Amino acid sequence: LEVSSFSLAVAHLNHLARGEDSNRDEDFVSNLCQKLGLKIFIDRIDVAKISLNRVASFQETARNIRHAFLNRILSEWRGDLVSLGHNADDQVESFLINILRGSGLLGLTRTPSKKGRYIRPLYGCFRSEIEDYIGLNGLKHCSDVTNLKTHYLRNKIRLGLIPFLKSFNPKIKSSLIETSGLLTDDEDYLQKEVDKIFSKVAINDQESNFPSLRVDLIIKQHPAIQKRLLRQAILQAKGDLRSISSRHIFDVLRLIKHSVSASEIHLPDGLTVFYNDGKLSFRKTNL
Amino acid sequence: LEVSSFSLAVAHLNHLARGEDSNRDEDFVSNLCQKLGLKIFIDRIDVAKISLNRVASFQETARNIRHAFLNRILSEWRGDLVSLGHNADDQVESFLINILRGSGLLGLTRTPSKKGRYIRPLYGCFRSEIEDYIGLNGLKHCSDVTNLKTHYLRNKIRLGLIPFLKSFNPKIKSSLIETSGLLTDDEDYLQKEVDKIFSKVAINDQESNFPSLRVDLIIKQHPAIQKRLLRQAILQAKGDLRSISSRHIFDVLRLIKHSVSASEIHLPDGLTVFYNDGKLSFRKTNL
Repeated sequence: LEVSSFSLAVAHLNHLARGEDSNRDEDFVSNLCQKLGLKIFIDRIDVAKISLNRVASFQETARNIRHAFLNRILSEWRGDLVSLGHNADDQVESFLINILRGSGLLGLTRTPSKKGRYIRPLYGCFRSEIEDYIGLNGLKHCSDVTNLKTHYLRNKIRLGLIPFLKSFNPKIKSSLIETSGLLTDDEDYLQKEVDKIFSKVAINDQESNFPSLRVDLIIKQHPAIQKRLLRQAILQAKGDLRSISSRHIFDVLRLIKHSVSASEIHLPDGLTVFYNDGKLSFRKTNL
Repeated sequence: LEVSSFSLAVAHLNHLARGEDSNRDEDFVSNLCQKLGLKIFIDRIDVAKISLNRVASFQETARNIRHAFLNRILSEWRGDLVSLGHNADDQVESFLINILRGSGLLGLTRTPSKKGRYIRPLYGCFRSEIEDYIGLNGLKHCSDVTNLKTHYLRNKIRLGLIPFLKSFNPKIKSSLIETSGLLTDDEDYLQKEVDKIFSKVAINDQESNFPSLRVDLIIKQHPAIQKRLLRQAILQAKGDLRSISSRHIFDVLRLIKHSVSASEIHLPDGLTVFYNDGKLSFRKTNL
């Protein structure tokens, strides 16, 4: 038997998105921590207001703000790890969201239960198992009312699609988690291959921070690798892959395969891809 | 403008599975070919009767019998290619069936539109496009009544799941076909890698037709490759991968990772996997 000894603190970000309910949740967490003698960090940020001035969705803005908040608390409190509440149902829902949106292999993989300083200790437990534990031990809990609304895509999937899929396969949730696990291994292998090949295909240019690739070497690769090399270059040039669909990757492939002379194409967020003299270059203009 | 010149013959296998309807379909095809001046080959095989004595499902037995029939006609008539009627909707349905069953990457890939002597010229057309063409040109057609019943899984998916998924994404069918196309490239690359690695990991044994693998070399591979090497060995030993789930693959992995001395495990269809002296051997006993 091993007993771990660690210090726990709680961080709660009030998104101010659900009026009185948001404040009630904050009070609940605050009271619970006081009772348990846990240190608590609370902040209030009007996510909707910030979201209005951004291109990203409310959900995406909320996630970015939340991560910034958690990182700030982590260094303030001098903690080692941030423990997140994601469970196995969240994995299933994300998998289905990505299937519905249309996604390549990467979108169908699992977020690891440990990624940097973030851990997800409940990732292997279904929501029902957690609720059973709460019920059996007579613990107090608090639900976000938006979880019951079918307003957001994730809730529509939870309350509509998953029950429907269960009529085809009662064990659909475990089944999708297993599929996702297999695909995660495959994606990991492919990414490692791409990392190796990218360093050979990339042209070292001391003057520029933007990547350039040798087209003759891209052409020699397998289609699965070609597409990933281009994605990797876009990621380097743009900092993220937001708004980049496989359609854009195919456009760049067409450019290098069918273009006879120098040409360029424009991708989202001010990204331009130039093809000239056997070299494919990526540049980003600040918008 | 290019005009292809080729001879066309029609092959119709009456499965005798839908009573009078089966015979009506046969008559329809037969009359149509006579009118169009096309050579027709017809055979009647009671698939249900044969299926009774087999482990495989009705659908699987039907497919095997159909392929044997088509291959026989092909060599009898001295044809070059067999053209099958599969369309884009069939691809979408197969993708979803495999997602529901729980499948690795291979199950989520597209059947190529040309595979050996079989071609699928309508693979890029949705059923609705084919029906539009039939309607616009006033062509006669004939529907299999079982297509309207939700008895079979494929029909349940066609008539229940796909319309439901459209409420999430109206372009879900094209989206799934695109996803499947991306995954097909990935699987193709991985399979080529596995082929290369398998020949290095396999131990040449002149006496046996069954594969043996070097465990020290398997262990060194990436998990995605390890699982595929084992699947490849099982395919060689057993002739197919029927009844083999990822659960079995994980069992074999556990055997080589945690077994201290000689041991064996039994897999479906009389397949036994032996681990002894750093060697993993696969044997099949005829049942």
